[in-house]
Amino acid sequence: MTTATTTVHDRYPTRLTEAAPMMRRPDPTVWGEADGPFTPEQVAAYDAKGFHIQDGLLTPAQVQSCWTEFTRLAADREVAASGAVVRERDSDAVRSIFAVHRHSPVIDALARTPRILDRARQILGSEVYIHQSRINAMPGMVGTGFGWHSDFETWHAEDGLPAPRTVSLSIALTDNFPFNGGLMLMPGAHRVFVPCIGETPDANFRESLQEQTIGVPSDEAVTELGLEFGIEQFTGPAGDALFFDANSMHASSNNITPFSRANVFLVFNSVENAPAAPFGGRTPRPSHIADRDTTPLTPLRSTEFA
Amino acid sequence: MTTATTTVHDRYPTRLTEAAPMMRRPDPTVWGEADGPFTPEQVAAYDAKGFHIQDGLLTPAQVQSCWTEFTRLAADREVAASGAVVRERDSDAVRSIFAVHRHSPVIDALARTPRILDRARQILGSEVYIHQSRINAMPGMVGTGFGWHSDFETWHAEDGLPAPRTVSLSIALTDNFPFNGGLMLMPGAHRVFVPCIGETPDANFRESLQEQTIGVPSDEAVTELGLEFGIEQFTGPAGDALFFDANSMHASSNNITPFSRANVFLVFNSVENAPAAPFGGRTPRPSHIADRDTTPLTPLRSTEFA
Repeated sequence: MTTATTTVHDRYPTRLTEAAPMMRRPDPTVWGEADGPFTPEQVAAYDAKGFHIQDGLLTPAQVQSCWTEFTRLAADREVAASGAVVRERDSDAVRSIFAVHRHSPVIDALARTPRILDRARQILGSEVYIHQSRINAMPGMVGTGFGWHSDFETWHAEDGLPAPRTVSLSIALTDNFPFNGGLMLMPGAHRVFVPCIGETPDANFRESLQEQTIGVPSDEAVTELGLEFGIEQFTGPAGDALFFDANSMHASSNNITPFSRANVFLVFNSVENAPAAPFGGRTPRPSHIADRDTTPLTPLRSTEFA
Repeated sequence: MTTATTTVHDRYPTRLTEAAPMMRRPDPTVWGEADGPFTPEQVAAYDAKGFHIQDGLLTPAQVQSCWTEFTRLAADREVAASGAVVRERDSDAVRSIFAVHRHSPVIDALARTPRILDRARQILGSEVYIHQSRINAMPGMVGTGFGWHSDFETWHAEDGLPAPRTVSLSIALTDNFPFNGGLMLMPGAHRVFVPCIGETPDANFRESLQEQTIGVPSDEAVTELGLEFGIEQFTGPAGDALFFDANSMHASSNNITPFSRANVFLVFNSVENAPAAPFGGRTPRPSHIADRDTTPLTPLRSTEFA
């Protein structure tokens, strides 16, 4: 009798016991050459920088619908009981609500709006589904930031996404000023994968969604990348949107102003990049944080989200 | 026998035991109508907003001289022994060096440079001296911010300055980006005095220079002022400078970028506003934090600081 074993080669090793050098990522940023809403110049810039800012993606009325949904979900006991609500570490203020595309028909429709869905398909060169969705409130005065990190590092280690074939979309629901904790990105650093040190604790997400300490690059790596690539910031009025690569190196500072900085956040993953077993952890994270249902999103009929 | 007592009426009561309403300040912002380097339009804007940004106040070579002085003073054992060096709370990184005009001939000359000194005299309508000077390093990655506060509140309560007849100058020694902890100000809020709650502890400055907890406005006051006045930020390349009123409501966020944000900071007080006994504390702060020698600054001869 023989035992057949399958070995999955991990091209993005992380959560290591000792330091490993940064590496050029083996995968592309733009997958294929599909046509879509992005112009060729926008696609080229996305490829080079790892992100694209789309002014006025939502109208004020659409922003208001999303905001109304946030308010509703933040007060919904079933949503809270599902574990989808994360609060600030030092206050009861709502920091994030997860799986908003599951809990809200408005957000579900938003994700399937052609001008959004077709952009994700264009970059990823395939059908897509939602790996994660959330609304981040970043409340005024008490909002704490997110240190420098690559989302893909966590999605690979803890959720089992094989490759960074993923586009994230952050839509401003309130004005994003330069000074209220706006997202900072290092243009071009998405092409560099930074292996991180430290084993993943069980149920790490309970801590990491408030303050991430595992799966974060060293200060030395951040300094090196910062000096090589510089920093740009996503700022703009409510309705503006940022599309960015899963491996973008990004961070946000605390918000000590009275102006909240709320954003809706949708992560589109390619159906050809379905989650496997976690590469750096034991148990996949719960489905409200990392959805494992890879059913492709169907485009919205034009009447559903005016 | 009679005892003569002098009662000093405190027009800016603070460090109170119970909440008191914010008040319109009884003193002007611009004292007199002296001519000087500021144009009438700049003076009017300073009067209305409580600050003025002067692009390119220092040349790159002058910036470099100040930076060299910072490096020298940060390593000087006598300076450290004098208590003038404040370190970050969670690291050994130098946060501030005080009394730099006493320890450095370069900074002393800088303060007496006519294009600087004459601006301070113009706003304050009198001879001036240095109440406080320092260099803030705001080191990359570890620099922690300063919460919302009015400098005058502390200078009145802990140093005994009777009125906000004081101009502060912050000169960028490194580029001040929007995202590396740059100073935020509320334009117009300098006309509002916010009484603060809480008795001043002895030697409060030992804590407050790392993180101020006494003499700070409530979150409610900050929110109210923020909604009324909005927020502007001082950004610009090294050499740009900010003149601002002693009672400006200002703050800075943490610096989680790899780019340090160092500034030299000079506080000019009118000789007609000499420090009295502290209005909200017992013992005046040490002279390296609050100088009580009100000898007027003499203008630099043109050859001293090229």
